[in-house]
Amino acid sequence: MAHLLSTSYTLDISSGSKLHSRRLYQISKVLPSSYILQTSKSPVERLVLLGKRPKRSCTVRATTLPLSQEAKAQPSSGSHQTSTGPSEPKRVMVIGGDGYCGWATALHLSNKNYEVAIVDSLVRRLFDHQLGLDSLTPISSIHNRIRRWKSLTGKTIQLFIGDICDFEFLSETFNSFEPDAVVHFGEQRSAPYSMIDRSRAVFTQNNNVIGTLNVLFAIKEFREECHLVKLGTMGEYGTPNIDIEEGYITITHNGRTDTLPYPKQASSFYHLSKVHDSNNIAFTCKAWGIRATDLNQGVVYGVRTDETEMHEELCNRFDYDGVFGTALNRFCVQAAVGHALTVYGKGGQTRGYLDIRDTVQCVELAIANPAQRGEFRVFNQFTEQFSVNELAALVTKAGEKLGFPVETISVPNPRVEAEEHYYNAKHTKLIELGLQPHLLSDSLLDSLLNFTVKYKDRVDTKQIMPSVSWRKIGVKPKTIAA
Amino acid sequence: MAHLLSTSYTLDISSGSKLHSRRLYQISKVLPSSYILQTSKSPVERLVLLGKRPKRSCTVRATTLPLSQEAKAQPSSGSHQTSTGPSEPKRVMVIGGDGYCGWATALHLSNKNYEVAIVDSLVRRLFDHQLGLDSLTPISSIHNRIRRWKSLTGKTIQLFIGDICDFEFLSETFNSFEPDAVVHFGEQRSAPYSMIDRSRAVFTQNNNVIGTLNVLFAIKEFREECHLVKLGTMGEYGTPNIDIEEGYITITHNGRTDTLPYPKQASSFYHLSKVHDSNNIAFTCKAWGIRATDLNQGVVYGVRTDETEMHEELCNRFDYDGVFGTALNRFCVQAAVGHALTVYGKGGQTRGYLDIRDTVQCVELAIANPAQRGEFRVFNQFTEQFSVNELAALVTKAGEKLGFPVETISVPNPRVEAEEHYYNAKHTKLIELGLQPHLLSDSLLDSLLNFTVKYKDRVDTKQIMPSVSWRKIGVKPKTIAA
Repeated sequence: MAHLLSTSYTLDISSGSKLHSRRLYQISKVLPSSYILQTSKSPVERLVLLGKRPKRSCTVRATTLPLSQEAKAQPSSGSHQTSTGPSEPKRVMVIGGDGYCGWATALHLSNKNYEVAIVDSLVRRLFDHQLGLDSLTPISSIHNRIRRWKSLTGKTIQLFIGDICDFEFLSETFNSFEPDAVVHFGEQRSAPYSMIDRSRAVFTQNNNVIGTLNVLFAIKEFREECHLVKLGTMGEYGTPNIDIEEGYITITHNGRTDTLPYPKQASSFYHLSKVHDSNNIAFTCKAWGIRATDLNQGVVYGVRTDETEMHEELCNRFDYDGVFGTALNRFCVQAAVGHALTVYGKGGQTRGYLDIRDTVQCVELAIANPAQRGEFRVFNQFTEQFSVNELAALVTKAGEKLGFPVETISVPNPRVEAEEHYYNAKHTKLIELGLQPHLLSDSLLDSLLNFTVKYKDRVDTKQIMPSVSWRKIGVKPKTIAA
Repeated sequence: MAHLLSTSYTLDISSGSKLHSRRLYQISKVLPSSYILQTSKSPVERLVLLGKRPKRSCTVRATTLPLSQEAKAQPSSGSHQTSTGPSEPKRVMVIGGDGYCGWATALHLSNKNYEVAIVDSLVRRLFDHQLGLDSLTPISSIHNRIRRWKSLTGKTIQLFIGDICDFEFLSETFNSFEPDAVVHFGEQRSAPYSMIDRSRAVFTQNNNVIGTLNVLFAIKEFREECHLVKLGTMGEYGTPNIDIEEGYITITHNGRTDTLPYPKQASSFYHLSKVHDSNNIAFTCKAWGIRATDLNQGVVYGVRTDETEMHEELCNRFDYDGVFGTALNRFCVQAAVGHALTVYGKGGQTRGYLDIRDTVQCVELAIANPAQRGEFRVFNQFTEQFSVNELAALVTKAGEKLGFPVETISVPNPRVEAEEHYYNAKHTKLIELGLQPHLLSDSLLDSLLNFTVKYKDRVDTKQIMPSVSWRKIGVKPKTIAA
């Protein structure tokens, strides 16, 4: 009883240089629906971005919607009620929805019956190719991920493949999807990546700052009621010797008092790019009445969410390497393969942490309770504080319980940061909105360790040690040795 | 007795796209020295940057040095003593040395026997062409300016024409000139310009942030002892309800105390770009040991300095238009042509101001007293505070004294800013270094008014009113009507 399903692909590859002509390809295919449900190969040819600076030189847009869905995605004011504003946000654009936090969030929101569109350039996958890295977990193409989700749940996630630094592309996604909320994960998100060499430092700041500016302009121009939920980082604050508040601090000075943006002391070009974003967004809230929530997120750990564990094709990425891997996830992989836990320097570095299941919950809470017009709202998004030494001790204990001995070594700190410091950051606003934290328990650590053991044959131990030095960053483009 | 002087010009025009081949032109000319001293035409063809985004699409480098000077400019560690570091800085690179503050500073430093090189893309002149604007004063080409300076004083100013966003170009200037100090004026410096449209907002932040990042990388890689003197703006602070300190504020909070970066509340994409720069520079001081001074400058007024008034070919630019003109200078032009003084909104906006003769003095003081390795030093560079209403009253009084009646009108404020607010900003650090301020006196105002009267036939009154709205900025490229 197989019926025919018409699927349309639009692929537009254009050079960033105005001197090049645009080329537009329109490809239509008629495929049996079973193809989409059963094949493991994507009917879309793998799109590979070429060149040193793919964001500047190449723009890729692809739509993998069935035609029936495409019709729905056309701008039509009658097709969904948006004039009520975001008090009942229904349509959520997830920029960076193919990444670690973005993919989990997109599925979670879709599962909660939001209409979801993923906007992603897929450049994160290119970084892995260029640096010779790979996720611990095998991950499917974004196309297969979305098809699998549709087949399992009947829910459609729209897909726009392209670079938000290309405003023409971004405009089309806005006018096509008409979001009530935009969740913006679409930035280069690794501090070490931003410290590899000059060109990556410049790429990171340009990509993140200009991409976010474009999102702000798109909201102002096309969807002024749309709520921006922007991923910041707790790293924007650095490690001040006073309590960290949520975005603002009331200061009494020489007998006068004002509430001002909390001072920022970021410690990598990546973290700085998030500070720049925060400042730009705050200005547009004031000048244009943009409504925005800045989620200053801590270090995320874990991999499973309710949605990603529904099928192996929905599995999330899990980074353990020296560039994209973060402390707790990396320690679990090290324990699983018998590699010593690598503590950078003295290990007193204390940060806020959260389970990826809380990331998706926090974003949902922010969307369901939008900021007011003109409000720049800042939430510190983490649930617990740990020092690196505390995390190493926890993983050591969990490893021993599972029967494998765990060793810890101190390696020279590749970063420039305080290794012993005061740290006390507030994080009550999301709790007040209803966040129910998944705290780091023995059972979660057991589960995470067992998960990493399952995939330990995929571990490339050469990728574990830090390879990027904050002090030695140079101006020559760096190629990672084979 | 005219002898022959060999002069070499190197002109390198390359596309920003890697797909284009580089073209290198090498032109040598043998000219009588009298040509250089007496002609008013440049032997170098006028270089015109084409296209909407010249900084990305076109790089122009030109050297106008006589060969004898070129030989001196080659990297040769023995040619000048630099190993002693900047305790006796001698070689100063002035980035943006063709602009309003940059030109006055370059001449002043040359006059004080520093070896000076100007690095400039000349894009500020292109902005005037594109927006249909012009300086009140006729200004000579940078080539003629430098030749005139040489003929009057015997002093050579080296010239590097190109874009510091092009790191290859910047590297060559560093390795050729080997600066002990870099004064960085080379940014898009107009708040209204940054608020014209999306592409100018993006240009401003990209140009300013990436240019400064490149300067930081060049210092780290090639001249680690070099002192960066960076022009910031008092506008980074906004108008907080507490006293503004110089860069840092000591905060006691919940029983603990720390000295942190002063909170910033910038109010245009231009001002924000300076905040981003400050944050980036502070990080590199900490991570790499860069020595930097951030000069948070107030609004500059005046046009004459000791050096620029030596000859009409050295005359500085004087902007009175709605995009590049600043309050006091614009008021003087308005008074001179019988145009009402245009106060934006209520006129209670209070800012720090300084005479351009103090700008050059402050920069010299910063260079002569460099920051330590790893120090990020912030000076508030202004001498007096005025509200816009106070300035209007001063110009009215001065105008009446000179016999022309002056009217003041309030126009709708094109900006988003407080029009009545507390303002008290510290500015003691440059005084402590020896700054002797030229305060705004009746005689200076008389002189400035007479100066504008002298050039009043050059005034285009259509350019006086504000043409850029903070709230109405759109995404479509805006062309100024003819």
